Amino acid sequence: MDIMNKLRLGLPKGSLQDSTFKIFAKAGFHINVSSRSYHPNIDDPEIEPVLLRAQEIPRYVESGILDAGLTGFDWVVENGVESKIVEVAELLYAKQGLGKVRWVLAVPEESSIKNAKDLEGKSIATEVMNITKKYLKKHNVKADVEFSWGATEVKAGELVDAIVEITETGSSLKANKLRIVDTILESTTRLIANKKSLQNPWKKRKLEEISMLLKGALAAEEKVGLKMNVRCADLDRIMKMLPSLKSPTISYLNNKEWVALEIVIDEKTVRGLIPKLKKAGAQGIIEYPLNKIIV
Amino acid sequence: MDIMNKLRLGLPKGSLQDSTFKIFAKAGFHINVSSRSYHPNIDDPEIEPVLLRAQEIPRYVESGILDAGLTGFDWVVENGVESKIVEVAELLYAKQGLGKVRWVLAVPEESSIKNAKDLEGKSIATEVMNITKKYLKKHNVKADVEFSWGATEVKAGELVDAIVEITETGSSLKANKLRIVDTILESTTRLIANKKSLQNPWKKRKLEEISMLLKGALAAEEKVGLKMNVRCADLDRIMKMLPSLKSPTISYLNNKEWVALEIVIDEKTVRGLIPKLKKAGAQGIIEYPLNKIIV
Amino acid sequence: MDIMNKLRLGLPKGSLQDSTFKIFAKAGFHINVSSRSYHPNIDDPEIEPVLLRAQEIPRYVESGILDAGLTGFDWVVENGVESKIVEVAELLYAKQGLGKVRWVLAVPEESSIKNAKDLEGKSIATEVMNITKKYLKKHNVKADVEFSWGATEVKAGELVDAIVEITETGSSLKANKLRIVDTILESTTRLIANKKSLQNPWKKRKLEEISMLLKGALAAEEKVGLKMNVRCADLDRIMKMLPSLKSPTISYLNNKEWVALEIVIDEKTVRGLIPKLKKAGAQGIIEYPLNKIIV
Amino acid sequence: MDIMNKLRLGLPKGSLQDSTFKIFAKAGFHINVSSRSYHPNIDDPEIEPVLLRAQEIPRYVESGILDAGLTGFDWVVENGVESKIVEVAELLYAKQGLGKVRWVLAVPEESSIKNAKDLEGKSIATEVMNITKKYLKKHNVKADVEFSWGATEVKAGELVDAIVEITETGSSLKANKLRIVDTILESTTRLIANKKSLQNPWKKRKLEEISMLLKGALAAEEKVGLKMNVRCADLDRIMKMLPSLKSPTISYLNNKEWVALEIVIDEKTVRGLIPKLKKAGAQGIIEYPLNKIIV
Amino acid sequence: MDIMNKLRLGLPKGSLQDSTFKIFAKAGFHINVSSRSYHPNIDDPEIEPVLLRAQEIPRYVESGILDAGLTGFDWVVENGVESKIVEVAELLYAKQGLGKVRWVLAVPEESSIKNAKDLEGKSIATEVMNITKKYLKKHNVKADVEFSWGATEVKAGELVDAIVEITETGSSLKANKLRIVDTILESTTRLIANKKSLQNPWKKRKLEEISMLLKGALAAEEKVGLKMNVRCADLDRIMKMLPSLKSPTISYLNNKEWVALEIVIDEKTVRGLIPKLKKAGAQGIIEYPLNKIIV
Amino acid sequence: MDIMNKLRLGLPKGSLQDSTFKIFAKAGFHINVSSRSYHPNIDDPEIEPVLLRAQEIPRYVESGILDAGLTGFDWVVENGVESKIVEVAELLYAKQGLGKVRWVLAVPEESSIKNAKDLEGKSIATEVMNITKKYLKKHNVKADVEFSWGATEVKAGELVDAIVEITETGSSLKANKLRIVDTILESTTRLIANKKSLQNPWKKRKLEEISMLLKGALAAEEKVGLKMNVRCADLDRIMKMLPSLKSPTISYLNNKEWVALEIVIDEKTVRGLIPKLKKAGAQGIIEYPLNKIIV
Repeated sequence: MDIMNKLRLGLPKGSLQDSTFKIFAKAGFHINVSSRSYHPNIDDPEIEPVLLRAQEIPRYVESGILDAGLTGFDWVVENGVESKIVEVAELLYAKQGLGKVRWVLAVPEESSIKNAKDLEGKSIATEVMNITKKYLKKHNVKADVEFSWGATEVKAGELVDAIVEITETGSSLKANKLRIVDTILESTTRLIANKKSLQNPWKKRKLEEISMLLKGALAAEEKVGLKMNVRCADLDRIMKMLPSLKSPTISYLNNKEWVALEIVIDEKTVRGLIPKLKKAGAQGIIEYPLNKIIV
Repeated sequence: MDIMNKLRLGLPKGSLQDSTFKIFAKAGFHINVSSRSYHPNIDDPEIEPVLLRAQEIPRYVESGILDAGLTGFDWVVENGVESKIVEVAELLYAKQGLGKVRWVLAVPEESSIKNAKDLEGKSIATEVMNITKKYLKKHNVKADVEFSWGATEVKAGELVDAIVEITETGSSLKANKLRIVDTILESTTRLIANKKSLQNPWKKRKLEEISMLLKGALAAEEKVGLKMNVRCADLDRIMKMLPSLKSPTISYLNNKEWVALEIVIDEKTVRGLIPKLKKAGAQGIIEYPLNKIIV
Repeated sequence: MDIMNKLRLGLPKGSLQDSTFKIFAKAGFHINVSSRSYHPNIDDPEIEPVLLRAQEIPRYVESGILDAGLTGFDWVVENGVESKIVEVAELLYAKQGLGKVRWVLAVPEESSIKNAKDLEGKSIATEVMNITKKYLKKHNVKADVEFSWGATEVKAGELVDAIVEITETGSSLKANKLRIVDTILESTTRLIANKKSLQNPWKKRKLEEISMLLKGALAAEEKVGLKMNVRCADLDRIMKMLPSLKSPTISYLNNKEWVALEIVIDEKTVRGLIPKLKKAGAQGIIEYPLNKIIV
Repeated sequence: MDIMNKLRLGLPKGSLQDSTFKIFAKAGFHINVSSRSYHPNIDDPEIEPVLLRAQEIPRYVESGILDAGLTGFDWVVENGVESKIVEVAELLYAKQGLGKVRWVLAVPEESSIKNAKDLEGKSIATEVMNITKKYLKKHNVKADVEFSWGATEVKAGELVDAIVEITETGSSLKANKLRIVDTILESTTRLIANKKSLQNPWKKRKLEEISMLLKGALAAEEKVGLKMNVRCADLDRIMKMLPSLKSPTISYLNNKEWVALEIVIDEKTVRGLIPKLKKAGAQGIIEYPLNKIIV
Repeated sequence: MDIMNKLRLGLPKGSLQDSTFKIFAKAGFHINVSSRSYHPNIDDPEIEPVLLRAQEIPRYVESGILDAGLTGFDWVVENGVESKIVEVAELLYAKQGLGKVRWVLAVPEESSIKNAKDLEGKSIATEVMNITKKYLKKHNVKADVEFSWGATEVKAGELVDAIVEITETGSSLKANKLRIVDTILESTTRLIANKKSLQNPWKKRKLEEISMLLKGALAAEEKVGLKMNVRCADLDRIMKMLPSLKSPTISYLNNKEWVALEIVIDEKTVRGLIPKLKKAGAQGIIEYPLNKIIV
Repeated sequence: MDIMNKLRLGLPKGSLQDSTFKIFAKAGFHINVSSRSYHPNIDDPEIEPVLLRAQEIPRYVESGILDAGLTGFDWVVENGVESKIVEVAELLYAKQGLGKVRWVLAVPEESSIKNAKDLEGKSIATEVMNITKKYLKKHNVKADVEFSWGATEVKAGELVDAIVEITETGSSLKANKLRIVDTILESTTRLIANKKSLQNPWKKRKLEEISMLLKGALAAEEKVGLKMNVRCADLDRIMKMLPSLKSPTISYLNNKEWVALEIVIDEKTVRGLIPKLKKAGAQGIIEYPLNKIIV
């Protein structure tokens, strides 16, 4: 096999792994991994996937051991390689939920710490040592930052004065009676690439195709197809109800008084739209699932 | 948030919970529940869901603590609130299967009890004390009814003379060598509402929309879309094969001798229909899944 | 119920069971099995399913205890009934993966056995005694064949000289440091029927319908629907990109400059096709899942 | 089998089941239960065990369907049969922990209810309707008591004003931000018997033996054997350190200057005692586990 | 390592594996097995354990590939090697229960087959082809014996006329509505050895030691130690209550009027003995567990 | 509660947690932990346990946030606090096995790295950054050390040149085809204490008692009690067979020709000793388990 036609791609092991494999499958790339291996199989001979902790992917993309990788923006920053790699795409997905996480500075509810300045001389536990130190530097504050091997939330108050911890909804922090003082970094999943790899035209095109297909699969996650039959007389009125940016497909039917109208829209808007469409005379409304959308 | 624009909705905890959440998701409302909590999250700020045992929902809908709720008709009757609440919709779904359950009077196969009259002076174990007592009263029979905390089926014969127990297919009763004497109540899931809440126009409209979307999602569970290409000459013959009530969508194709025919039908009828359609000349028959159907 | 209108059908218990039930469900037949029972329920009163080990199904189809059954070609051969039953259809599915398995002759990597002739006087462990003996006979070799109750792979080298074992990808053999000497038999799932049963016209037609629906469901596993809007001017160019054998459905739109193009294609080809279609001017490309395809 | 020589014994199904079977096993009676059955096997032909919910055992012991049973004192009271059955033994064991539970009246932390009197006109949810009503009557208070089918703790405040709920350590109540207003009933496990059955001398003796062996096994749970070698000169001093009520076994050794001292004591006291014994000159101290103790 | 000082020992994989490892551990040999391996580790360098199906162990002990092995007597017979191997010990243990199993001839309850003679011309499914054929031969009966790959019990009546199946309590046969016609073979676990290996004095002695320790551990499973203090005056009377074959250890105490009595007895007899001992004046009765007993 | 009489004790969360709790229970301290909490309950009001990652315990013992803690010697060194804390006891236990682990420098089997010197300019992945850097410094070698977030073994060769990884038996390294170049650190579990805390006499004594009881419980893990009856004539000969350091307890029996001999010995030596004892005339040999041993 010609090494030039092989893209070495880092995939995140652990909590993001299942959702990553699922979105690749919807994009048309089927990956499966035998237990304990870090070289999964993929049904595209042009890709060589490597399963690694999200924390370590930026490091190996930067050094060129990997051509590209999927990881969180947070770990790109923690590794200090923002300007040393290229971000090919932002991909909004996550283990569950919205796909957006925040690293926040949190303290016990009753703590006297109200802002960054109050951290002077305090101790902070975190998994992201560099992000935290950068934040302190920006605020010109000196504090003791220590690496936390886990269960960071329970340390605040008793073992350290503050923590810098990841959160999606804030509910776990609340359950531990912690108060968020500041958001230090917002992060989403990114497809990043090594700079040199991108100078190779084959690798560049391959990455763009992967990126297009992943985005198409992600878009389909949140959208559905909607079909309905509409009397020609009602068409204009109904067209106005539809999200303005989308151009529906209208096709002729046997019965000349009716047309079939088909549109792809956000699944979230359907539940509000259907009662209105029905009132406006639409008939035989059906909603169906999608695999991919390339606009 | 304006309290007037909030619908307090009881959802059944336990065996019906998963299927309820799934049907709501298909209807466009995504619910998730953290463990042990009875206040799930829903992505509609106008709904405040409360997770409760199906047995208790009728009581709280009747008293107005809830505006509406999903529960079984059996628990509406057991709570004695049939005439004190309003039934908004009957929803045919269940943990699995058809969605219809029966409460039956059952006795050991070899018991001498053949009908309600034979219960005179006997003991009956059941989870539905009131339904059972009402049944006895209707038949003008006196018997000892005792509350069963579970495993009711194994009690018949040894601990009590008869039981009143829920069954879907009767197979569990048969496995316990019990004979059904009578069906006391048939029950399906219902969307019920508090009378006063329905006098509020906003709540009334909101409930009707939820009802329409749930029904649309349930309808889609049992139906599929079917598409095929049909020669114009065969169209009439093929049209007659299709379930008469449905009006298929017929659209023109590039090749003027053919039309594309699309129809939504019961998934159950497809396996019988396809061999006939193919024989009649239909080509490129494809079946695809649906999310929602609003007729 | 009229016994003439009942088809007794053997279904494989164990590793193939889940995938068999899933493909039947997609074909429109819903089977469920209570634990430990070998008489599952099916929602077609004309079929009487019997759950049996794949190894035993050929034997009972041959003897007429079953009218038909699903099993592997390997077990048809092992039971020696190839010419005594009728193969109605080959069905490419499996627990996972491609649906094709091989029985191979394997030896320790360092073994001196290089071909069938080298087996003379050696010992061989296998689950397929008859297939192995037939192979030895064909090569005119005498060797000691012993039945292996499981874990055959670990025996090679220490307990026996060679094994005949099933493999899909060969990875398990490699992990046990075994070398494949020869492929003895390739096998896929088959729908087989008793010869006498096929002389009954009703049973013959029923089996053909089941076969058609199963194939339709299997075809849908690997295909997807693709829709897109295409400018009339681009139509020819885009048509040429599509797999030549398929005839896409083209329908007219409100906007006369565009047509809607719809096609069913291999899911595997989509990821390569989409970037090209987009470059060629296709818009609003969506991919959707299918349940069944009857060409 | 002679029915006179058979003791029908109710055993609690569910949360107490495992610990009950374990303590019976230590007492010398080995029970095993096939799934879903309520007639477990026991290796004593004179006992016929019946597996029932603890809530229902008092009812069937009172009516004579069972000769005896293990249940909680709470369910004896809830069934209103305290004076209609005989308590043979109190057995201090539980799913885990001390074996003592309390039913408490609890309200939301911020509730204005401070004592029983404040319940006037309020609503109370509970699994123990009769215990609660009796408590209200005793305090001459009128309140609305409703049966709770589960998850009682989350109801307080929002659905009802107060609850009567079981607790061992109070931690679950605290987690739900509830305040205990009063303890309504303390309960432990009891071996209870039907009055008439106790008039049968064989059944009476059988029950006494079971009771003695269960108590012996329970005693052994909390005790250990302790052996040590002690110089005769130190004997008196060491004897004084030991719990005064126990008489240790002292036996002569080959070496006349030493004796072997053996004692059965509370496991809990060992960790405090050992450092002192060692200081006082005891040697070769060993602690060993016990199965049964009959003092 | 000197190959002469190494005993190659087959251990049964699968259902007997856990109980085998446990009894070896009590005997003082600690085995652990990494998943999928058939060469477990043991903390005795003189033993080389090999994990194999019980069915295959007799074959490899007979051929000398193994020096010895643990397997069921049934598989010794099925392999036809009773006279070609040496039985070193019978070991009464099993997955659970008594350790004794039976292979029985069973038919549907309503079958007309009442004894071996009635099998003439019938079909029989079984996992033990040779044992079954030998039985038929003994009774001079001709029948069709077919190998059953599992779930043999459900086949009787519908697929075959009779089965030969393993049973411990008969409860599974009863659940399948089968009637036992005859017991064909009783079987227990055996330690068997290759004849040639036993001519090696070192291997012979090693096997005898393993046998002694396994038996010691098995004996301890069913026995307990019992200690009590007895007044010298009561000693004779109490001695007579004890199982006659055992000689208790009686030792002197400080208090000359009492002796300490210690005895090892069947755990099963304790629950009957304790009430009598107590009545007879024994005090401070304690029961303690044992690891090994070598009488 | 008086803060002076409270010992704040760090316990290792995670892989060592279960075995730690078990050994504390045998020592007489019963700990239980509600999920996600890091403040377990203990039945000694003088101890306040804190559940923390073993990696972090040395840091907090050194700073005085904890009085003492259980952790590995490796993490004491990694935190660089060897001389800043006091080691109270070495405790030989582990998740499983011997309780001794090694951090080793490992490379792919085919690597050219043969010793520390060969690491010059290479990359090393490890969880113990400081231990590794110290090792490099000692050998006066410069290499690139990077923190590994897990799955370190699979990185060697492809992502880095060498790893420093923990191993107990080396089997996982072998499975990954790695070669051990050097052992960098051997580690066992330690009870460590803060220097200032030890100046408090109450805390010092408390720690010594905990230490004595833990050691007593650990000793009992590997030892058993052995009793036997020995003819006076055989006593000397049998005494000589016993491990010389132990002094057995010999007590007189009723039968003057025999004595009872009791000894505590290593469980490992029993299986070799018993055949010899029996040959030498010992009778009624029984082995029993122990909870604690304080020599």
